Amino acid sequence: MTPTSPRPDDYFGVSTLPYGVYSPDAAAPRLGVRVIDDIVDLAAVSAELAHPDAHVFDRPSLNALMALGPERWRAIRDWVRSVIVDPRHEELVRSHLRPVASVSMLLPVEVGDYVDFYASESHASNVGAIFRPDSPALPPNWKHLPIGYHGRAGTVVVSGTDVVRPRGQRRPGADGIPDFGPSHSLDIECEVGFIVGKASRQGSPLTVAQARDHIFGVVLLNDWSARDIQAWEYVPLGPFLGKSFATSISAWVVPFEAFKEAEVALPGQSPAVLPYLAGSASEVFGLDLRLEVVINQHKVSSPRFRDMYWSATQMLAHLTVNGASLRVGDLFASGTVSGVERDSWGSLLELTWSGLEPIELETGQLQGFLADGDVVTITGWAPAADGGRVTLGEVTGRIVPAPS
Amino acid sequence: MTPTSPRPDDYFGVSTLPYGVYSPDAAAPRLGVRVIDDIVDLAAVSAELAHPDAHVFDRPSLNALMALGPERWRAIRDWVRSVIVDPRHEELVRSHLRPVASVSMLLPVEVGDYVDFYASESHASNVGAIFRPDSPALPPNWKHLPIGYHGRAGTVVVSGTDVVRPRGQRRPGADGIPDFGPSHSLDIECEVGFIVGKASRQGSPLTVAQARDHIFGVVLLNDWSARDIQAWEYVPLGPFLGKSFATSISAWVVPFEAFKEAEVALPGQSPAVLPYLAGSASEVFGLDLRLEVVINQHKVSSPRFRDMYWSATQMLAHLTVNGASLRVGDLFASGTVSGVERDSWGSLLELTWSGLEPIELETGQLQGFLADGDVVTITGWAPAADGGRVTLGEVTGRIVPAPS
Repeated sequence: MTPTSPRPDDYFGVSTLPYGVYSPDAAAPRLGVRVIDDIVDLAAVSAELAHPDAHVFDRPSLNALMALGPERWRAIRDWVRSVIVDPRHEELVRSHLRPVASVSMLLPVEVGDYVDFYASESHASNVGAIFRPDSPALPPNWKHLPIGYHGRAGTVVVSGTDVVRPRGQRRPGADGIPDFGPSHSLDIECEVGFIVGKASRQGSPLTVAQARDHIFGVVLLNDWSARDIQAWEYVPLGPFLGKSFATSISAWVVPFEAFKEAEVALPGQSPAVLPYLAGSASEVFGLDLRLEVVINQHKVSSPRFRDMYWSATQMLAHLTVNGASLRVGDLFASGTVSGVERDSWGSLLELTWSGLEPIELETGQLQGFLADGDVVTITGWAPAADGGRVTLGEVTGRIVPAPS
Repeated sequence: MTPTSPRPDDYFGVSTLPYGVYSPDAAAPRLGVRVIDDIVDLAAVSAELAHPDAHVFDRPSLNALMALGPERWRAIRDWVRSVIVDPRHEELVRSHLRPVASVSMLLPVEVGDYVDFYASESHASNVGAIFRPDSPALPPNWKHLPIGYHGRAGTVVVSGTDVVRPRGQRRPGADGIPDFGPSHSLDIECEVGFIVGKASRQGSPLTVAQARDHIFGVVLLNDWSARDIQAWEYVPLGPFLGKSFATSISAWVVPFEAFKEAEVALPGQSPAVLPYLAGSASEVFGLDLRLEVVINQHKVSSPRFRDMYWSATQMLAHLTVNGASLRVGDLFASGTVSGVERDSWGSLLELTWSGLEPIELETGQLQGFLADGDVVTITGWAPAADGGRVTLGEVTGRIVPAPS
């Protein structure tokens, strides 16, 4: 396990320009765009420049901006970039800047439905081997459809929010009575989340070709998981309280458009997928996102999003194939990002093989499942057109004790 | 199978007084209260009488009303009843009445998260026997916790909305390739839904004693289910597309308070539940709700809600025991209401034993899983204090063909 990577020079440079929500000096929440270490107040700048969409920046979430639709997303991103780089606007922009370090960021999106997928073959195989050692590691449906389930939208929190250790039932011992108390096996899931910005109608499935236009932006996501609670509750209707206590997302939503240069081929799908999941390289693709998982300042893993079996567009086509509608603000996530090698696994369930093999840090300390006080930070970036980086920033959270 | 029951004389009498949302003459959506066959425009009446909470009635959902909290819910219900029965207000009320039959009702609640439980022992046993014939009918956790999972809030629709037959993947045949197309086994689930009207904080579990105050009202709910899609997709993360295409709720939300006289003891819980799920008779109780399932005007089942194993307050205590927060507008449902006897089963999966034994109607026709054009209506009522009835009204929906 190596120390964490240094911060690149182009951290949140003009290839990224993500949107977030904050309250300057206890004023009403509004949208800002991040440039390196500063936030530009888009509500103020758009009002002064009389931008026709100024009303969407003076809001407590990105939802009104997203509801303008994909054409305006692109136009607004171009406008924001042009204002920031234009010397004529330098003084205006400077007057509405403030250091990121001086403000608290708010949850950027009013989340509609939250769906979590399970799109890493290595993760699904590892979990299968751990949770269901007597069955094949991958369930028979796994390569035919991107498995997903609904999570709890109301407990999605912004990066930096403390996570209270959940209490719950665990599998009974010899006396047949379930054990109850704070989770003994609190875990992370290193994931990438996608924000839906364009709605769709109930009864009208999306194709993989249409799916791209419905994705507004990308966030890092930590799907905190209590493995002992999950293992006891999840048969037959899936994870519930083992996941629903908290899901953290990064404060900065990076427009999907920014990842054009990061599009890569998927590792390969065999057997062939059904026609509704098939598409050309511009419709079905991976993303070259480089992630890092850091616990208490020790890097414990470097997952690569390009290892994922299913594409984001396939997830969205699958999610709607039964006629389910999308709303502006829906969030769907990839599931844990894990590659084949151990140093690219995205959960402690895998990294410690269910706690049996704690990670040895370079200090000699052992890291098992999360202890109270542990701080987990996931970072990420992707290659940008100019040879630089598109920055996903970070999603971080600290574990605080369960209520007594 | 018998013809449907006649409508009682006190259908939507003053023991019920449910709230709903409608748009009179294409005006802005607003809240109304139903009295027999009429709607009283609460936005207009509260404005004319200068009620201090008048602003919550002039809204497109009940959420603002609910956000006032349990004390105001009771005060407003008392006020509504007093206005309706007061001869001095007769003319005012009459001037803001319109026949229910003349308006379209809208979805009454802006749904936060939707959780579906699985609280009928008979239903869980029947489904287990059908889906997992080689395992015990009830999973080992079933009597220790009310099993639940998150459904799709964005596809909750109001009674009367057509339901588009979903398409999806089915289990592969001999060639190993999943079949794809419109569901062959489209089903209903006759359920009771509870609307959360009072929020709770993340990290702060509710006791069963506290849970009652968080429940604003009750609706009938049909959790439409595509059994072939569900059977192929649901291992290991639970139902997803087999359920997420549509969930219908009744247009009228009956205040939880109206069911005081319908509270009954649960059938009995053995083994004893853990302390966080245990409570006195006023904290843990069943409800004597009499339901009917009608398909194309033929009654096919008469489920009794008092047969349910778990109480609504236990569901809410369990849902929050891990620290998950509640939002105003969250919806949780009981799961299919099925009793021991066949004529009280609440799904076609059970009533037709997975399609193998179609129901013989009194006309001699056979009813299997739903065909295009089938209309399903669930009705319900409970005993009221005055010997009359609290009416749950109905939730109805018609199946329309899958998109081609």
